[in-house]
Amino acid sequence: MSRWAIGVDLGGTGIKAAIVGEESGILTKQRALTDTVSGPTGIVGQLAAIITDLYHVASETLDVADFAGVGLGAPGAVDAEKGILSYPPNLPGWTVFPLRDELQKLLRQKEELSIPVFLDNDANVAAFGEAVYGAGREFRDFLMVTLGTGVGGGIVLNRKLYRGPHGTAGEVGFMIIDFESPIFHADICGTLESLIGKKAIVALACKMIKASKSDSRLARLYNRDHSRISPRKLEHAALSGDAVALAVWERVGTILGVGLANVTALMDIRKFVIGGGIAAAGNLVFDPALDQLRRSTLPSMHEGLELVPAHLGNKAGIYGAAALCFG
Amino acid sequence: MSRWAIGVDLGGTGIKAAIVGEESGILTKQRALTDTVSGPTGIVGQLAAIITDLYHVASETLDVADFAGVGLGAPGAVDAEKGILSYPPNLPGWTVFPLRDELQKLLRQKEELSIPVFLDNDANVAAFGEAVYGAGREFRDFLMVTLGTGVGGGIVLNRKLYRGPHGTAGEVGFMIIDFESPIFHADICGTLESLIGKKAIVALACKMIKASKSDSRLARLYNRDHSRISPRKLEHAALSGDAVALAVWERVGTILGVGLANVTALMDIRKFVIGGGIAAAGNLVFDPALDQLRRSTLPSMHEGLELVPAHLGNKAGIYGAAALCFG
Repeated sequence: MSRWAIGVDLGGTGIKAAIVGEESGILTKQRALTDTVSGPTGIVGQLAAIITDLYHVASETLDVADFAGVGLGAPGAVDAEKGILSYPPNLPGWTVFPLRDELQKLLRQKEELSIPVFLDNDANVAAFGEAVYGAGREFRDFLMVTLGTGVGGGIVLNRKLYRGPHGTAGEVGFMIIDFESPIFHADICGTLESLIGKKAIVALACKMIKASKSDSRLARLYNRDHSRISPRKLEHAALSGDAVALAVWERVGTILGVGLANVTALMDIRKFVIGGGIAAAGNLVFDPALDQLRRSTLPSMHEGLELVPAHLGNKAGIYGAAALCFG
Repeated sequence: MSRWAIGVDLGGTGIKAAIVGEESGILTKQRALTDTVSGPTGIVGQLAAIITDLYHVASETLDVADFAGVGLGAPGAVDAEKGILSYPPNLPGWTVFPLRDELQKLLRQKEELSIPVFLDNDANVAAFGEAVYGAGREFRDFLMVTLGTGVGGGIVLNRKLYRGPHGTAGEVGFMIIDFESPIFHADICGTLESLIGKKAIVALACKMIKASKSDSRLARLYNRDHSRISPRKLEHAALSGDAVALAVWERVGTILGVGLANVTALMDIRKFVIGGGIAAAGNLVFDPALDQLRRSTLPSMHEGLELVPAHLGNKAGIYGAAALCFG
């Protein structure tokens, strides 16, 4: 009686897909390298093959009457209503493409499967995954922030995705907190992504290590080979007490906290689920971020302010995509 | 057959109230100085007297069966659901008070009027007024920004007020765009209000006039008496071509544009209705603000970006309050 769906996470490098039971979670997973050579048509073919495969596997043990559909998270700008994916970064040869309808058509033609398909962008899908299966379950309203190569976001209001009037809401990485900063990303100065995206953290760390003139292990690593400074190395150094690494994370957390304060001021959102590779630094970032969030908001808005780590890791996309079908 | 309501705008200085026809707009107005001496009870008494008065006037010509209720906009933090007004600035002796229910009770006891009362904060009410009767009529989703002594905001999504999970949404004056700025308001650095609230504009102008060493009329006024520099004077000077005054407004517009870019990035809102005394500067502020808004957002978000002046001036509160009743 329990429903199930196929959740698909389309990325620039790989495709992750799984059969997801509404109650039981991920049942069977499958992965493939994304075909970045053949453009949209190639990818639609890949997706159809994976989906058909999983559907046949599932139909051996699950009731097809309980099948809720295929959910798909994709990078880039998505018009969820029309099922159109535009300009996905890392997918060359792609401009504006009706991914949902083309996928449905191919499934119908090739496999005679008439399947409802739901499409949304990866940040929204990850947020919805956390909302339904992860750290956001306890929150009615929250912002999911993904700290990784970039800084992304997805907004959940009243347990539903808030996509905004044109479907582009949640771009917290483009929140400007230092508009006269010389540091920029996508030609916009002082955005969260420009200041605490992965590259920015490494650049900040290099600058701080150099300025510190310390002789720590981290400094020796830096002196031997700048390019070996990474968020992971900074995390380890901080956990072993390295003062500079601690200061780097404190700075990253502070900047994050300022950005989140803007979300609280504008939208009255007070719960933040933090995911992505950089979030592995945990309280090294969370503690200063929460401190700064409180300092940067009115006392009348302090009640209920909370930062929590995401629970689903890189499975948030699959879970969220499936959850779109259970909507 | 057309409905009518009583809209009330409670301010720290005055109370404005009017009979408002749903179709026909303001019919009869009334004003009073706010009794700031007797605390909440005094104000409830004042409000009840004005409302009763207007109700009796209205009932001579309008059908009481078409009466939709009393709407009330008030400064400070409002819990619209519970009808509670907390810590209104400029109303001494007020902490947390169930304004809506106390007003209803008094109307019932004293006048035997059983009237539905709707309460919201002044920024939300002004935004809703513009949404229903003013510059926001053409927009389904917009942010109303009030530029005056402070910088306030109200969010309209899908033609309804967005109040947020705790009713404090829309505080665009607390949007931080320069987090390491030495300029602060309410202990928070680099917020829109700290940078382009009325006092901040005057301070900026004084600084820029002094630095310019110009011998313009504006500079001579400044040299004679610093305290005579006002937004109105700056507006006149700019319109007559004063280079420093023009640069001041350009700077104010730029800062506003950065703040609005954050609203677009986060909420995907692309329409902005700008009201308040400072908005009288019109295109002196609007043009650089729109330029900066475009520079500070991704090209994929440029479609539909628009800043328009508010239409209702200081009547937005009365209109919006009445509109709460027609909601």
